[in-house]
Amino acid sequence: MEKNWSQLWLNYRKSEDSSQKKYFESLEVRGFGESKIIANAVAELELATKAMFGVTIQQKKPDQTATLCIEKVDPEGKDGTYELIQKGHQLSLQAATERGVLYGVFHILRLLSMGKRLDSIRLKKEPQNPLRMYNHWDNMTGDIERGYSGNSFFFVNNEIVIDERTRDYARFMASIGMNGIVINNVNVKQCASLLITDRYFDKVAELSRLFGEYGLTLYLSLNYASPIEIGGLDSADPFDQRVIGWWETKMEEIFRRIPNLGGFLVKADSEGRPGPFTYGRTQADGANMLADIVKPYGGIIIWRCFVYNCTQDWRDYKTDRARAGYDNFIEMDGDYHENVILQIKNGPMDFQIREPISPLFGGLQKTNQMLEVQIAQEYTGHQIDICYLIPMFKEILEFDTYMREKNSKVKDIISGRTLGNRYTGIAAVINTGNDLNWTGNVLAAANLYGFGRLAFDMELSAEEILEEWVALTFGTEERVMQTIKEMLLPSREIYEKYTSPLGIGWMVTPNVHYGCSVDGYEYSRWGTYHRADHFGMGVDRSHNGTGYALLYNEPNASMYDKPETCPEELLLFFHHIAYDYRLKSGKTLIQHIYDTHFEGVEAVEKLITAWESLKGLIPEADYENARERLDRQLYNAREWRDQVNSYFYRKSAIPDEKGRAIY
Amino acid sequence: MEKNWSQLWLNYRKSEDSSQKKYFESLEVRGFGESKIIANAVAELELATKAMFGVTIQQKKPDQTATLCIEKVDPEGKDGTYELIQKGHQLSLQAATERGVLYGVFHILRLLSMGKRLDSIRLKKEPQNPLRMYNHWDNMTGDIERGYSGNSFFFVNNEIVIDERTRDYARFMASIGMNGIVINNVNVKQCASLLITDRYFDKVAELSRLFGEYGLTLYLSLNYASPIEIGGLDSADPFDQRVIGWWETKMEEIFRRIPNLGGFLVKADSEGRPGPFTYGRTQADGANMLADIVKPYGGIIIWRCFVYNCTQDWRDYKTDRARAGYDNFIEMDGDYHENVILQIKNGPMDFQIREPISPLFGGLQKTNQMLEVQIAQEYTGHQIDICYLIPMFKEILEFDTYMREKNSKVKDIISGRTLGNRYTGIAAVINTGNDLNWTGNVLAAANLYGFGRLAFDMELSAEEILEEWVALTFGTEERVMQTIKEMLLPSREIYEKYTSPLGIGWMVTPNVHYGCSVDGYEYSRWGTYHRADHFGMGVDRSHNGTGYALLYNEPNASMYDKPETCPEELLLFFHHIAYDYRLKSGKTLIQHIYDTHFEGVEAVEKLITAWESLKGLIPEADYENARERLDRQLYNAREWRDQVNSYFYRKSAIPDEKGRAIY
Repeated sequence: MEKNWSQLWLNYRKSEDSSQKKYFESLEVRGFGESKIIANAVAELELATKAMFGVTIQQKKPDQTATLCIEKVDPEGKDGTYELIQKGHQLSLQAATERGVLYGVFHILRLLSMGKRLDSIRLKKEPQNPLRMYNHWDNMTGDIERGYSGNSFFFVNNEIVIDERTRDYARFMASIGMNGIVINNVNVKQCASLLITDRYFDKVAELSRLFGEYGLTLYLSLNYASPIEIGGLDSADPFDQRVIGWWETKMEEIFRRIPNLGGFLVKADSEGRPGPFTYGRTQADGANMLADIVKPYGGIIIWRCFVYNCTQDWRDYKTDRARAGYDNFIEMDGDYHENVILQIKNGPMDFQIREPISPLFGGLQKTNQMLEVQIAQEYTGHQIDICYLIPMFKEILEFDTYMREKNSKVKDIISGRTLGNRYTGIAAVINTGNDLNWTGNVLAAANLYGFGRLAFDMELSAEEILEEWVALTFGTEERVMQTIKEMLLPSREIYEKYTSPLGIGWMVTPNVHYGCSVDGYEYSRWGTYHRADHFGMGVDRSHNGTGYALLYNEPNASMYDKPETCPEELLLFFHHIAYDYRLKSGKTLIQHIYDTHFEGVEAVEKLITAWESLKGLIPEADYENARERLDRQLYNAREWRDQVNSYFYRKSAIPDEKGRAIY
Repeated sequence: MEKNWSQLWLNYRKSEDSSQKKYFESLEVRGFGESKIIANAVAELELATKAMFGVTIQQKKPDQTATLCIEKVDPEGKDGTYELIQKGHQLSLQAATERGVLYGVFHILRLLSMGKRLDSIRLKKEPQNPLRMYNHWDNMTGDIERGYSGNSFFFVNNEIVIDERTRDYARFMASIGMNGIVINNVNVKQCASLLITDRYFDKVAELSRLFGEYGLTLYLSLNYASPIEIGGLDSADPFDQRVIGWWETKMEEIFRRIPNLGGFLVKADSEGRPGPFTYGRTQADGANMLADIVKPYGGIIIWRCFVYNCTQDWRDYKTDRARAGYDNFIEMDGDYHENVILQIKNGPMDFQIREPISPLFGGLQKTNQMLEVQIAQEYTGHQIDICYLIPMFKEILEFDTYMREKNSKVKDIISGRTLGNRYTGIAAVINTGNDLNWTGNVLAAANLYGFGRLAFDMELSAEEILEEWVALTFGTEERVMQTIKEMLLPSREIYEKYTSPLGIGWMVTPNVHYGCSVDGYEYSRWGTYHRADHFGMGVDRSHNGTGYALLYNEPNASMYDKPETCPEELLLFFHHIAYDYRLKSGKTLIQHIYDTHFEGVEAVEKLITAWESLKGLIPEADYENARERLDRQLYNAREWRDQVNSYFYRKSAIPDEKGRAIY
């Protein structure tokens, strides 16, 4: 099979610096038995060094010291920990597990691709999150919910596809330290409900084995109503013995037929999906029932907290969707069994460009937690607009929940540091599809790469990660590096500037979620309102309003509760603010809206100029790919600017101080 | 085939009054030869009188005088004219053409069904519009564009279906005097482009023959780009000899293969459809080219005037979609060939609940014209909300364009009276589908019936027509008659009250066109804006604005041009008006908006009470059908009320004088 798809950051180039070739003359692997993972790690080494240095690593001869030694040792640390030590003529990679070897090898290759030298290296790396997962929202028909880069490469016409692209995808994931993948959409419908039946077992098993060879554990999204939909029962009540019995039989079959299966992801009682609420049971009741049944097989249940009333009355100012996740899950804190993990979206709403952190983080004291972020750019530009999300993810991880005196940042909680628990981690709704470049916009691959690196090492900065990605993808030419950094690092703020202001979110075209529609969700059932009137806008979530601000631990609660102390980028999320309110900048709210929207468009114009300066320095196809999207981004940004400004000008009747065009 | 579908107004009931039985003892048909139409007319007579009186009409014996005599005479008048004369023991139906017989028979049956007597009858009826057509927007896949009563009964999975339902549909059409039908959507795509190829000729011919037996002429919507799409040419330029040659050959084939074909309906250069503009030609160039080619076969080309820029910039206050039809067609007045008809939507926008009359009526001085109305309730409630449209159509027909001293109302123009032309008439985008009751809401059949009756006789009042329909459909019980009249006669004003005010239109959910979204089209490319700001709303189409008002003849132009003389129901269509402007009622504009929206909902509540009073008096299934929809109408009306009121309150900050709930 001819590889006509991109190799992304694994596109090994000839090295300019042949000095490092010396470490790849001979290889010895010690202490690991027969292992597909080790074999794949070695194969990757061979592939890369051949491309970089034109060498083929030889097996160590009996009388020789290998130049590269891979050794099983038993260092402290989570599965996947490795050490790299250069001493004398030898580079040594030490790890307790096969995953460690795999990650260590990719670390070596990353350094080489970045033009770094391995001489005198001495480092130890431990993956900080026990679970580092991709969540695919792929449907078995082949389309992808919120997919912006083609169709699924796992599913075509309700069949599972496994080919060289699948293997490359596994390589990409392994290369950035991922260890888990959910292949099907959390909205489990039609044929996806049959993934746990004989119709698909063989293919799922084959896929799972393939992933396993790259240290990746397979998970499936589960239809909570399976006992009804495929079991022929009339109930999915978690307390019903028939239901429990059905699941027991089914799980025995599933784990027997599918090797390397880690467990299940469940979206229950949300947006029309079935769940335990139907039977008057709690979310804990539902999750625990499944967890107890999969426990003998080492399985886990990842239970999403995205549960809210999606038929809200917009006239109702009391109900607050932002509270829903908290209110639906907090009471059962401590009741969730040991192999249940609650998967919590970063914000209380739904992946907006700016949200506060979900108060479940810091609220839950005795529960396994996973952070869910989204690199599929559903609300952040559809992989048309550039939006490098790693800076946002860093903010999330560094948020201090104050649930303990120390170690109570989000990164502490999800790494297991805060509570000392075993099942924690991070997952991303993923931005890949069968486009030849995988992510639609070539620049969106920075998020794919960056998420994995960050999941492994949360201390990396957004800038460090970006530097890695640029070097691996486009090479180490300084102008390319500087220009792309200048484009991507502020891109989230740029997107924010021309879209919805100060944390209020939404204002997007309903359903599509791209393009401006200020009132698009204002009179709808989705709980997503800006409440703008002639005098001001924003949702009062203080103690005077919905009380949402008080769900946080102190001092966060007090900080959010008052407009004066609330971080201004979240001001409209927490407060209803008059248009003539003075921000710390001295500007009024309305002038801030006008200014940022003009600035946002100007910034996009500069992005275009910057990108155009790279013409000839990066591959033509990649250049044109992003160039064309930048034009669409500019169109989008102008529409947002003019619609938002016109909307608020028409409503407030307050003119722009600078007299710019508003319609 | 068991008829499980409704017989609508042809559901002949046993007569309470046996006195009229005497006219149906024996029948003589004089002067007409072998004729399917006559046979069908006689069959209908037999069916009905059997049901009403239990009699079977006998052929007249040689020594007898028939009690019912159908006679070919040659009275003045258009095709379809008939006379009914009762003298002595005989009822005589005289007509020059078979269509006249058909219409006369249905007239007799209508009178009987309404409980009227034929004694002493003496009347002559002439169809006022030469062309009286249904326009189906059925796609060959089976779905219907803007269909709200199921799928197509003509097309299923790209095949043509002909069965007893098709025949019944032809009967319905004949019974109300229709004489033409377009079976496929004006947006001619996919398989519909192949209707004029061998793949479909046999079935189209069969359908056309069937229609012909009920006096109905078949027309097809034509893909203007057929020379490219099915002809393999690289152009559809009307001046290109290859294109002309291709059409000549194609038309010869079409008219040879399809009997009873009247011609074609063409939507060109509109909403993405191809047309002569592509080649720098005028609409006249395109229409005339086709017209010349079909002329030898007696064919006509009906050319839609719905041509406008559908990628307008909402920031542009100069461009006015309302002008587009006029501007695109007026210059070529006089150039359109004799067998071209321009089909003009009633208003300049698109079937809103209230629009002025298209200024093409009264503007075009030398061109054949047809009026296009829509009984598919695209913008008028989707056959969920009750909206009896005949009063609106009456307003349209009675509108005086002042293009002549007299006889210059719309009804005069489309009947041919004004200009003395032969090809004129009226068409309706139709509201039928394969629902067993044909129209989704049983009460929507009043529009189906009413349109036909009005097309035939434009002097009938909306009330008369409704009385006929109620009697034929639900019988002559006085309470049923009164209640349904009280519900349907004001229903258009009720719908108007709770939706967009004073002629501004739109404010609907984009694409769907049901449900409120005040800003749904405000920042879009469709040219459909309300321009509401803090101070007022409406589009200035006066001489100060887009100048649209001046497209009318005097005194209409002056009347529309000034807010003081502009009919208030169209005030916001023609003018940008301040919220505190005083209407003739003494109310401010904003208070008028609040009041009408509260009134609209109250009126819907009364509709429900009224309908509930009929429980037991009309068939249960019909009762429940409308009852359930009335609940949805109430929900819809409340949403409109609250969204419109809240939107304008938030924008204007002017409170409701009565302090009612606004959000």
